[in-house]
Formats: sequence, structure tokens, C-alpha cells
Amino acid sequence: MEELEYIAPGDIEKKSFEIIKKELSDMGVELPPEYEDIIIRVIHTTADFDFVKTLYFSDGVVQKARELIKEGAAIITDTKMALSGINKKKLASFNASALTFMSDEAVGEEAKARGVTRAWVSMEHAARISGKKIFAIGNAPTALFSLHEMMEKNIFSPDLVIGVPVGFVNVVQSKELFLSSGIPCIINKGRKGGSTVCAAIVNAILKGM
Amino acid sequence: MEELEYIAPGDIEKKSFEIIKKELSDMGVELPPEYEDIIIRVIHTTADFDFVKTLYFSDGVVQKARELIKEGAAIITDTKMALSGINKKKLASFNASALTFMSDEAVGEEAKARGVTRAWVSMEHAARISGKKIFAIGNAPTALFSLHEMMEKNIFSPDLVIGVPVGFVNVVQSKELFLSSGIPCIINKGRKGGSTVCAAIVNAILKGM
Repeated sequence: MEELEYIAPGDIEKKSFEIIKKELSDMGVELPPEYEDIIIRVIHTTADFDFVKTLYFSDGVVQKARELIKEGAAIITDTKMALSGINKKKLASFNASALTFMSDEAVGEEAKARGVTRAWVSMEHAARISGKKIFAIGNAPTALFSLHEMMEKNIFSPDLVIGVPVGFVNVVQSKELFLSSGIPCIINKGRKGGSTVCAAIVNAILKGM
Repeated sequence: MEELEYIAPGDIEKKSFEIIKKELSDMGVELPPEYEDIIIRVIHTTADFDFVKTLYFSDGVVQKARELIKEGAAIITDTKMALSGINKKKLASFNASALTFMSDEAVGEEAKARGVTRAWVSMEHAARISGKKIFAIGNAPTALFSLHEMMEKNIFSPDLVIGVPVGFVNVVQSKELFLSSGIPCIINKGRKGGSTVCAAIVNAILKGM
């Protein structure tokens, strides 16, 4: 067994980030400074260096996300897990918030009646609330399809999309829809993603504010 | 773009599991029937087939976990995210529960005073509650070190450990401690893991009950 190193609690994250940076450097990877903090935090959350190759950022998206948060945006998630992982205290300091409609009884009933997912309906409900809206999707591709359908029908357009659902059924396609949509977005191309990745991206954006 | 396939909401998970099984079969991987459901659910949650190679199960651990749940065990997590992802309704049907001490004010204060992590102290607090206890650790290696220290000092011994912290600092070592501990355990060897993996393992155990 490798020897253990005592690290003070406050230094564990710092030490982790140093290790990640060193390994990236050993691999010859240079991260774009604008996205470095987000990519490293995603690797920190997953211990998976594959994300270096698949994370996509539209031009100026990080700056835009921070502007929206300063305008008091609501960050809408598609799981309670992602919601639970987001730094809501920091968000509140900008009068911004994080919420999900996934557990709403009305959402569940409507989804059942229409034969669509809760995630689909929860996006429609979220679209109706006032103010700026960032959609942080870490689980359900149908959440992204729902947003895209509202865009196509000119009913609604999200201010920014973090699209990192994970999985095997229509996940890749749901993300590809946003790559050239014109909507500011952070997308993880391919199958990987998840609620922890979603929360890590939001928290990295907040950390830099 | 690949063509989209409409899948009824209730069939998405089933379809995903079929795809995972097909790809595992194409890779020539045969999963042990006893652990198949858990391994597939972890892949479903991460889209990462690496877990096939790193998930470790002590003999009879799945059976043991189900017995403990039937005896009304408490599942202790080291994050609110993992707690949020666990099927608490199903747990409640066995008079079992899931809880975390991570956000307790007393835990935070004691951790600060002693210069250890919240996770470390939260394990000590959890050890004092009555009844059977399953520890489901998806984030903090220090949670596993805390449990191990209590075992070494003969203060406390967990009934079962799900040890899947993720990260770069002392994570691998924290897991190795449990491999030959004699404690029934499910461990993901290496750096990978996380709150979603932790919740997926608990939910797979519950699904089979």
C-alpha cells in the first residue's frame, strides 16, 4: 500500500487539483485558461480524464453564465441530486437560486397522462417561471429534447444550457442538438455526464465569482 | 446524427440495461450473476465500463446487505447527494432508513476544533446510533479512515461498508483498508466512484428485494 499522507482538511481539494494539473501536464494536455477550472473540477468529481476530450464550451459561455447569475438567474436541474450538490449559499449571495420541478406532483401526473417523462414536463413548467434561467441537465436526455422542442416551436428559449446527461438511450443525440443551437452551452459530448458532473460545473462557475 | 428512437418513459431503463448487457457480451465479459444487477446499474449511472474491472464484492455481501435492510438497518452516507439519490421509499417499506450527519452543526464544529474532516467526525456520530448500520461512502476517504480507526481501537465495527469514494488524495488507500478487513463490503478499487455510484449500488440492492 502506498504511504498515507496527512493533509489538513482545508488542503485536500488544493492537493487534488495539483495532482490533476500535474497528470494533465504529464499527458501533454494544455487546457484553455477560460475553461480550466471547470474541466479540472469535473475530473476531480469523477477521477475520469476522458472529460478533457469531450467537454464542449460555446464561445463566452462561462462569462455569460456569471452574468446571468449576477442577474439573479434560476438554475433549473433535472434531479434532486444535482440540486443537492450545487452551492446554494453562494448562489443566494447573488440573489440567484437553484430549483427543480422533478418532484412536483402536478409534473408527475401530467407526465403520466401524456406518456412523456417527468423531465420533459418539468422543463415546460420551469420555462413558465419569470426571470433568467440556466438549465443544468445531468440526467435526462428528454429534458434536453423538451427544451429543444420549445425552441423549435418558438415557445421558449433557455438563456444557457449545461447539458451533461449520462446514459445509453438517445443521450448522445440530445446533446448534439445543442452544439450548433446558438444557445450558450456547456455540453459533454458522448455518453458520460451525470448529476455530480452537472453540480461540479455549476460550482466551478460560482467558485470564480 | 443517429436517428432518434421513441422509447416510452417506463422502458428507458430497461432499454439501457439491454444495451449495456449487449456491449458487455460483445466485449466477452461475463458478470457473476450475484453481482450483475449492481455492476450494470453502476455502468448505467456512469456510462463507464471501467467499473467492471474495479468493483470488488466480499463473499455473500449482497445477501448480507439485504438481511441488514430487512432488520431495519440505517444506511449512513457521507454526502447529501448520495442520500438524495437513494430510494428512501423502498427502504422505509422495510423500516430501514438512510441518513447523513454531514450537515449537523455539532459535526462541523467538532471537525474544526480537532482539525479533521466533517466526514471523519460524522462517522463517529453515526457509530453511536442504535441498530444495524450500513456505511455507504461515495465521497470522502476520511470517512473510511475514521471507520477503520474505530475498528482498530475496538470502539466500533460497521455491519457492512459500501466504499466508493472518488478522487486523488488517499482515496485508493482508504479503499484498500477494507478489502481484507473481514467486514462485508463492496469496494470500487482505484480512484473512481462518487455519490451517484454509491446511490446506484444501494438502489440495485433494494431493487432485488
